[in-house]
Amino acid sequence: MTTKVSGKRVAVLFSGGPAAGGHNVVAGLKQILGPENTLMGIKAGPKGLLKGNLFEITDDHIQQIINTGGFNFMGTDRTKIEKPEDIDKVKAVCQEYNLDAIVVIGGDDSNTNAAFLAEKLFSDVKEDGSGVQVIGVPKTIDGDLQLGDELPISFGFDTATKIYAEKVGNLLRDTGSSLKYWHFVRLMGRSASHVTLEVALQTHPTIALISEEVRECNITMSEIVDSIANIVIERAKKGLNYGVVLVPEGLIEFIPGFTTMIDDLNDKMAKFKDELSGKNIREQLIFMYSKLTQGHGELLESLPDPIKYKLMANRDEHGNLPVSQIETETMLSSAVKARINELENTIKFDSINHFFGYEARCGASTLFDAAYTYNLGATAGSLILDDRTGYMASLTDLDKGAKPLGIPIASLLDIEIRKGKPAKVIEKALVKLDSPAFIYFDSRRKLWAENDLSNSPGPVQLWGPTSRQLPKTVVLNREYASLEFKFASE
Amino acid sequence: MTTKVSGKRVAVLFSGGPAAGGHNVVAGLKQILGPENTLMGIKAGPKGLLKGNLFEITDDHIQQIINTGGFNFMGTDRTKIEKPEDIDKVKAVCQEYNLDAIVVIGGDDSNTNAAFLAEKLFSDVKEDGSGVQVIGVPKTIDGDLQLGDELPISFGFDTATKIYAEKVGNLLRDTGSSLKYWHFVRLMGRSASHVTLEVALQTHPTIALISEEVRECNITMSEIVDSIANIVIERAKKGLNYGVVLVPEGLIEFIPGFTTMIDDLNDKMAKFKDELSGKNIREQLIFMYSKLTQGHGELLESLPDPIKYKLMANRDEHGNLPVSQIETETMLSSAVKARINELENTIKFDSINHFFGYEARCGASTLFDAAYTYNLGATAGSLILDDRTGYMASLTDLDKGAKPLGIPIASLLDIEIRKGKPAKVIEKALVKLDSPAFIYFDSRRKLWAENDLSNSPGPVQLWGPTSRQLPKTVVLNREYASLEFKFASE
Repeated sequence: MTTKVSGKRVAVLFSGGPAAGGHNVVAGLKQILGPENTLMGIKAGPKGLLKGNLFEITDDHIQQIINTGGFNFMGTDRTKIEKPEDIDKVKAVCQEYNLDAIVVIGGDDSNTNAAFLAEKLFSDVKEDGSGVQVIGVPKTIDGDLQLGDELPISFGFDTATKIYAEKVGNLLRDTGSSLKYWHFVRLMGRSASHVTLEVALQTHPTIALISEEVRECNITMSEIVDSIANIVIERAKKGLNYGVVLVPEGLIEFIPGFTTMIDDLNDKMAKFKDELSGKNIREQLIFMYSKLTQGHGELLESLPDPIKYKLMANRDEHGNLPVSQIETETMLSSAVKARINELENTIKFDSINHFFGYEARCGASTLFDAAYTYNLGATAGSLILDDRTGYMASLTDLDKGAKPLGIPIASLLDIEIRKGKPAKVIEKALVKLDSPAFIYFDSRRKLWAENDLSNSPGPVQLWGPTSRQLPKTVVLNREYASLEFKFASE
Repeated sequence: MTTKVSGKRVAVLFSGGPAAGGHNVVAGLKQILGPENTLMGIKAGPKGLLKGNLFEITDDHIQQIINTGGFNFMGTDRTKIEKPEDIDKVKAVCQEYNLDAIVVIGGDDSNTNAAFLAEKLFSDVKEDGSGVQVIGVPKTIDGDLQLGDELPISFGFDTATKIYAEKVGNLLRDTGSSLKYWHFVRLMGRSASHVTLEVALQTHPTIALISEEVRECNITMSEIVDSIANIVIERAKKGLNYGVVLVPEGLIEFIPGFTTMIDDLNDKMAKFKDELSGKNIREQLIFMYSKLTQGHGELLESLPDPIKYKLMANRDEHGNLPVSQIETETMLSSAVKARINELENTIKFDSINHFFGYEARCGASTLFDAAYTYNLGATAGSLILDDRTGYMASLTDLDKGAKPLGIPIASLLDIEIRKGKPAKVIEKALVKLDSPAFIYFDSRRKLWAENDLSNSPGPVQLWGPTSRQLPKTVVLNREYASLEFKFASE
């Protein structure tokens, strides 16, 4: 026997970078709350919550946004609600709009923030002394918000990787057509290499680098460059002088010592500005080796020349080189070219660099993301109607009926040092080298490097023979019996 | 009454950059030739013809390649067959393989080359003194090989523009979601702006530059930068501090004097290398103004500072800056940022640069390109069976049954000065400012710049509500009654 809950007032916001499916979370939420309860939208993310920028979401709105990509229905931003005065503002907005619950659709940081809000709004917000519920919904194209069987994947990952896989598949076809290019493709996805691994499993590229392996196996930049150069040379000898190299966005951070070395270099170049002026790049480098902290000088000196030059030359207007703006794919392809010239200077190496990123965050959500997010929204709504707070909505067993689950966010929080202070955060899930997905990749990559075994999936986000497939990394890691997703509602 | 032609031996090759649909040209050709005639494939383009790298195309091959993108079934290259000794090699290969006809699938240059070959192989190739027929098939994603009603569009254009439009549409959604970015997107397409115009009509971007307008209206780089900066400022004042700017790949060449100025700058920087060393960029610029040829110095001096600096700084290992490698989108966004700082320095301008190119040349061919190319292949085959030579296959009236047409290539050749010598070439079709497509664009662009009216078509290459639509520029320019394509064979 169920009692129908009515009169609840719920507000929903997007937080962080956009991802496909957000609109369907709102639709699923609206559906489960029904006409007996009220759903409000918060404009422009957490900042809009602080400003009290709310509006009522109608059935007409839902008709317009259902199954569309992006977060453009309400907008998003990256404001963190942390300071006591921010909490006071949120409480005032809750009171003004008579809110009973807030739904935060966001990534690991946003869900951490949701848990913090849940704690702060637990009681004494409303006149009767009761609190306001806060529920999180797991979003990120990066795939680094996942918790084994309990949260197989965040939403947006499937859409982004299917879009990247289409493009990488097209490039792989291009290499076999024009027979002369090496494409170096940096793929969005922050620190973790989930996106790169997934795209590799879908397309079978010539080479795919996985940052987590670079760190765990202590692979140096020179070793990476050497191994790519050797594959290029071996393929050229077989008449296959072309290929595609996938480079995860976060690679640089995983090369031991690289990030701190860059920070050190930025500092010291500013400090010794006068001494450096008038010197050419080679002279500047020799000067800097001795000025960097022990270890950093050696690391800089050990890098392939083209990479050193790029690190010295590509400075912004303040003379800095932010790590996030290092074009790893460009750096790698220059270094590979130089290495090939040293090893076999008769081999022509023609490379083209790419960054695939923003164009997939707001793609039309795939069949999976569309169904998944609608059900995530419904799960979030059920948690609200069940008077829960501090939970994240999830769905398990995606291959057989998808069971809804509420995960207490507090149980996920670890202590991590951020900006020198201990902070409670949800740990980012990295690619594990002992996971079935990585092991499968490892068992195939030599064949992909030596032959033309590429796969070009095409535009299967919404239609087509493989459009109902789950991400391959999820199927492998969760040991799902079926490649296809199944929802009870279907 | 028709007589069945049998025993003909036909060879087919790809030439130039790949484009979606090439495989279906081969399939259509194979179908019309039937089992009574033989179809050979030539590997790796015109170079493969010179080397005699041929193989027989079987029905099994066709089953594997039909409806797939790319040219990877045989590969392509850009070799031009011009020298008398090359013609002798081709004749020898024709004799070795007993060929009766060659089909060249390529762009304007390749079809020009096909006409040249047709002339050279017109007679005295075979033992009986007869010749070898040569038929061209019009391919290019750039859309610059089109001839009014007789050849409404080349194949590959529809696929490339639908892929770019999906991505640009995604970026437009992203701007309305994250509410803070200006995306500057350079679109492949060589000199002409057909691709940019088509993508603009499909997506309604905030701004789209059209090179042909820049040349015809004598618009300077500073004026372009000013007009973008003003739109950014006006939108920011309305709370719309984001947008997408489309930049055609060929823009630089259309700015009066720009290309020759860059060549002059490359020459003089090499000449005055010693004088320049030790100077900073500002000093180098002042030095160069007076060294450039009359007019070029003034043009360089008139450019926005960030563009000047980029022209001086971005030099390759030989100290050169090839025009083709100028990242126009990056140059423009830096200059717009500087201009906004001068005009309204309270406005935050956050830009992200993109080049969309190679990932669409080998996309899975759209429904239109798949049907169009199959029929083009069949048309080419019919011209061969009808003993024609020097013709290009075409289809007219694409909106109502698509009639096959053979166009004598010689009739298309104009005399143009190339590398200082007169040469017969097919003139590249540019965007005409008095064409219905441009006039339509012109009538809408102010609205698109001032509001959020963007359209995100999604992945409709193969399936979906608008998947059967012809390119919008073609529908407008040909005044087709229907947006959809129709083929007699369907």
